[in-house]
Amino acid sequence: MTNVDTHPVTVLGLGEMGSALARAFLSGGHPVTVWNRTRARAEPLIAEGAGGAESVRDAVAASPLVVVNVQGNAVAKDVLEQAGDALAGRDVLNLTDGTSAEASAVAEWVAERGARYLHGQLMTIAPGVGHPDATVFYGGSREVHDRYRGALDLLGGKGVLVSADAGVPTLYGMAVHGTMWGALNGFLHAAALLTKEGVDLTSFLGDAGPAMSSVLSLLPSLAAEVDSGEYAIEFGGLRHHLPSVVDLMRESEDRGVAGGVPALTLDLVRTAVADGHGDDSYSRLIEYFRA
Amino acid sequence: MTNVDTHPVTVLGLGEMGSALARAFLSGGHPVTVWNRTRARAEPLIAEGAGGAESVRDAVAASPLVVVNVQGNAVAKDVLEQAGDALAGRDVLNLTDGTSAEASAVAEWVAERGARYLHGQLMTIAPGVGHPDATVFYGGSREVHDRYRGALDLLGGKGVLVSADAGVPTLYGMAVHGTMWGALNGFLHAAALLTKEGVDLTSFLGDAGPAMSSVLSLLPSLAAEVDSGEYAIEFGGLRHHLPSVVDLMRESEDRGVAGGVPALTLDLVRTAVADGHGDDSYSRLIEYFRA
Repeated sequence: MTNVDTHPVTVLGLGEMGSALARAFLSGGHPVTVWNRTRARAEPLIAEGAGGAESVRDAVAASPLVVVNVQGNAVAKDVLEQAGDALAGRDVLNLTDGTSAEASAVAEWVAERGARYLHGQLMTIAPGVGHPDATVFYGGSREVHDRYRGALDLLGGKGVLVSADAGVPTLYGMAVHGTMWGALNGFLHAAALLTKEGVDLTSFLGDAGPAMSSVLSLLPSLAAEVDSGEYAIEFGGLRHHLPSVVDLMRESEDRGVAGGVPALTLDLVRTAVADGHGDDSYSRLIEYFRA
Repeated sequence: MTNVDTHPVTVLGLGEMGSALARAFLSGGHPVTVWNRTRARAEPLIAEGAGGAESVRDAVAASPLVVVNVQGNAVAKDVLEQAGDALAGRDVLNLTDGTSAEASAVAEWVAERGARYLHGQLMTIAPGVGHPDATVFYGGSREVHDRYRGALDLLGGKGVLVSADAGVPTLYGMAVHGTMWGALNGFLHAAALLTKEGVDLTSFLGDAGPAMSSVLSLLPSLAAEVDSGEYAIEFGGLRHHLPSVVDLMRESEDRGVAGGVPALTLDLVRTAVADGHGDDSYSRLIEYFRA
């Protein structure tokens, strides 16, 4: 795909991430206008070829695409408000972190002011911006997404429009991060057990590689079970998990390792089995999160 | 590698798993002797070509390799005790689940009776026994492992001797399962958020595939950090995780989803940041499990 998009882009908010975003657009040959509450943050980018702006209003007026990356969506709205009627007719890409309701509220507010809205959830830290493997989840206006596709590709090679709902990319990001934190917590808890026995973790990963890489292999079947609401499975139901979770809890106690991680799993699995769901898949546990 | 191993094998314990083990040995052409506390469980296997035995002692006397798979290591020891002096000179493969201390205790007890010992942690449920991708972690006697390598390969294509310590394979299994349970809990918690918004999980996995498959990509660097005890990193330290965990907690509250999973992560990350470890890697959290 040839990138023929050199639309001017304005970047509001020049923290570590906002500065990386501005540099990504500059690297693609876009005219870039930058603004930050404290002007000093703009200077390095202006030295690299970006245009400065005296006010948010001037910055917004300079480009059809306005990218916002600030500390929280309340600030995002405050900043955009300073654009006044210059916002009308613009396309806004908000890459500010927060909850899905906050993203949706900014989307609604922007639409009321006659601008189009796209929300983006960056799945990388600043040094990863622009990497071919960096994912960005987008939600909101397909027109904005498609029009600036070339510019968006500069932010990460794995950009994907996941919904017309501006709140959804936030949820996508939370699902990836939540799965990651869960995996890391489980790994580090077990790593405390392994290293107390003198096993080094690099050796563990070397020997356990094939088994570790299958840790996420259940997700597609779990997803299908949740989507259909049919949790019963022939093999490997919750009653098969229970004794292994109990063993992990006992091992944790034997070795004096904090047991919050296995205790959480044990409570969920034990409750579900006690409720008569022992022959259901692990996916049944979603009902306990929903409750 | 040609499999020329057709040593006779005795299988003690014919639950769902033990029966699958006996069938795997039969399928490889091994003479198999089976025993179970309740004789009825042995009948189908005898019909398939296994030999029966009136007592544990007779069963153990029938083969150089004695495989045990029962409900807990206390039972494993009780059963082996019934072999009396027939145990001396045998090679014992214990595939019974439990804690690492229990495995080590059986290993010691068996060695005292003049038999060699190998412990195995099966990383599959019964229907997966014999699959080329099924992992079995072994620990204990390398001689036993190497002598019966052909027979062990019938149990799972990914068998690996991880330690001379009979307790270690149990810890390996716990690390894989613990990472898996953590990932699944994190995924299902977020799935409750996604599905409340009307997103189906199969679509989510389709769109989020590349990001989801990178969820475990941090493990090698975390392992190296823990092994070296050096947690400081240039980018992506705990202070970068904190606001995202807070957002997940707030989202969970907004949507009435049970917050135990993010609360556990939040407590760990917040404590570590408050303790001055904000610029350390996520791997620093192992110190909180060790405490």
